[in-house]
Amino acid sequence: MDRQACADLDAADPLEKVRRRFSLPDGLRYLDGNSLGALQPAVAERVREAVEQQWGQDLIQSWNTAGWATQPQRIAGQLAPLIGADADEIAVGDSTSVAVFKAVAAARQLRPDRSVLITDDTNFPTDIYVAQGLADLTGDLEVRVVPPEQIRDHLDDTTAVLLLTHVDYRSGRLHDAHGLTAAAHDAGAIAIWDLSHSAGAVAVDLHAWDADLAVGCTYKYLNGGPGSPGYLYVARRWHEQVATPIRGWFGHARPFDFALEYDAATGAERFLAGTPPVLSMTALEAALEVWDDVEVATAVAKAQELTSLFIDLVEERCGGEVEVISPRDAAVRGGQVSVRHPHAYALTQALIAERVIPDHRPPDLVRFGFAPLYISRVDVFDAVEILARLLDTGAWDRPEFHDRKLVT
Amino acid sequence: MDRQACADLDAADPLEKVRRRFSLPDGLRYLDGNSLGALQPAVAERVREAVEQQWGQDLIQSWNTAGWATQPQRIAGQLAPLIGADADEIAVGDSTSVAVFKAVAAARQLRPDRSVLITDDTNFPTDIYVAQGLADLTGDLEVRVVPPEQIRDHLDDTTAVLLLTHVDYRSGRLHDAHGLTAAAHDAGAIAIWDLSHSAGAVAVDLHAWDADLAVGCTYKYLNGGPGSPGYLYVARRWHEQVATPIRGWFGHARPFDFALEYDAATGAERFLAGTPPVLSMTALEAALEVWDDVEVATAVAKAQELTSLFIDLVEERCGGEVEVISPRDAAVRGGQVSVRHPHAYALTQALIAERVIPDHRPPDLVRFGFAPLYISRVDVFDAVEILARLLDTGAWDRPEFHDRKLVT
Repeated sequence: MDRQACADLDAADPLEKVRRRFSLPDGLRYLDGNSLGALQPAVAERVREAVEQQWGQDLIQSWNTAGWATQPQRIAGQLAPLIGADADEIAVGDSTSVAVFKAVAAARQLRPDRSVLITDDTNFPTDIYVAQGLADLTGDLEVRVVPPEQIRDHLDDTTAVLLLTHVDYRSGRLHDAHGLTAAAHDAGAIAIWDLSHSAGAVAVDLHAWDADLAVGCTYKYLNGGPGSPGYLYVARRWHEQVATPIRGWFGHARPFDFALEYDAATGAERFLAGTPPVLSMTALEAALEVWDDVEVATAVAKAQELTSLFIDLVEERCGGEVEVISPRDAAVRGGQVSVRHPHAYALTQALIAERVIPDHRPPDLVRFGFAPLYISRVDVFDAVEILARLLDTGAWDRPEFHDRKLVT
Repeated sequence: MDRQACADLDAADPLEKVRRRFSLPDGLRYLDGNSLGALQPAVAERVREAVEQQWGQDLIQSWNTAGWATQPQRIAGQLAPLIGADADEIAVGDSTSVAVFKAVAAARQLRPDRSVLITDDTNFPTDIYVAQGLADLTGDLEVRVVPPEQIRDHLDDTTAVLLLTHVDYRSGRLHDAHGLTAAAHDAGAIAIWDLSHSAGAVAVDLHAWDADLAVGCTYKYLNGGPGSPGYLYVARRWHEQVATPIRGWFGHARPFDFALEYDAATGAERFLAGTPPVLSMTALEAALEVWDDVEVATAVAKAQELTSLFIDLVEERCGGEVEVISPRDAAVRGGQVSVRHPHAYALTQALIAERVIPDHRPPDLVRFGFAPLYISRVDVFDAVEILARLLDTGAWDRPEFHDRKLVT
């Protein structure tokens, strides 16, 4: 595969016109869309309108006239087809961490007679912190962190909750969501899936998985903008009995009655809490409109193709200097590929200096994300070319690249 | 007081130049800044820069280069002088409702051997919902909602937490925060203050009050924009022992280590949870800069003057057609005045049609807010003129004003 072959494939790609809806700087190979998705100019315009017209001119009336009050429901409707859910099973508004808290607390209340939460040590750390924080708060839950290959062994009649992240944020490895959900159910436990690195890049079908609850992030492959709100999924079969731990007024059946008595809204809507961050919600809503014109399956196939291409080129051109730690089988891999290098931090900084943007995950990984809506095969080719050159020449090994002054 | 006298006072007001930093539509008397504060064009510009340059061009690197990573701390520094706190006692990021949840859970953990939370029936309902939700989650807390005049009678050695909102969102009545905090402490309880309708319009001094925890909203008198994040205050004396119920990665001492073990950040910072909504945070940070040029005491005095003027004019011009239910004593009144009318909803809609914007609070209140940074005495005069005319002529009583199709 040479650069021209990549360019030819790009030219024939039906996603090429979608790629043009994003505004990436010229010459930047942005391989960190798995951390912060790129901007669409149409989103910038919508945020500008929300600030200047809706807030600045229409003020409080925009809760009605601009539909701020129904933003969570509209965004739920946009997310539903991306994760195999119905709109009234989804609540959008707080951060993903807060969504994890709500999900774990709700799941725990659905299994009051059990005492163990199982998660694995490839989970995103904040999910584990949140679970342990809830356990310390209620005093009746044990959080057990096990190696991923031992999850099934630990599921038994003491298991209240199985909390897993679908795509390993380091390696990109996918869990068998369908099989593990079934195993959790066989043990009588509630299954929660964190889809933060999934939706928009890998196939997600919560109904087919028979998942109980799920959470996800919207600022990665869903391009909602920095810190855009997370989402929470609650399967319909639990709607009659599930409770949110954080009973905010936006989750009340009639918030503007200002009644002293709490009356939960129906469905997942009861998991809304405070007033959502409207400007961030506006960016998210506008960003999701791109999916009106993209089949999820097309995006998933493209992500698989790009990650496969990257792995092939790295193995061909980077000799043994980096080790690909992501699965070779695209069917069990997310939209990212990580490589191991003893000086991964410095190598990351050297790539950034060459306008290839991956990120570093300690201790020794460089992580490359391939957002299918706007990354091309030529981007992949050029990134590997630059990576190979840095490794060949040793140009990554300069003092300034080792200087750990940066946050991320 | 005639209109010219109001105009003369406005012209001599040192806040007049601050008022020009806000962009309100011409001819609009916007008396709902206690619900959604007005836009400053400088804020619009900063949000535009955050979207187009920081997100669109600099992408993930903006966590470093644009200082997104330290936004919560910078905003805490801006809020500190407005509430009589130090920056490291404040966490900003989630909604106010989520902040209430964190505060109540943290307070409850500081008094594990006690079982009652006292609040009053003038509290904003969501605060009560949140407290009851926590009580149901942990199963070891009784939430007791009492009339405000009976609060002190209920404080005893079973009281774990006193949770009050400083300014009654309906009447504008101020609680004696200093005295009630002392009474809570005398009983051995933890005092939490909700400052949502306070900061920016009434004097707040958490250190002088000796408050334990506090929360507040930033989209009212602090003008942070629709749904801008709330804040949480934790007094320094609790920093060594206090825990957050929601342990997100932004509250970790070293979030980018991605350690499996939770290690709380120091001070109030541990109460940060997930990635904050950066666009909404950006608007808030920009909006708070106006306070660099405004003494809080000046704003407080102006709010008292405007609310007194409004009450005087209403009593002079509106006969007995509406009843002012807010305190006559400006020292115990927030930046708002509510009047009672049997058809308050319709009267509110009629005022809006005349470009006077109050809001309705059920069952029978019309609530007028007087944001001191941008409301003038002439605005007050004109609003009362219009109110009096609607009442005199009965023009408020048209079918379309009774149509309850609106959310808020």
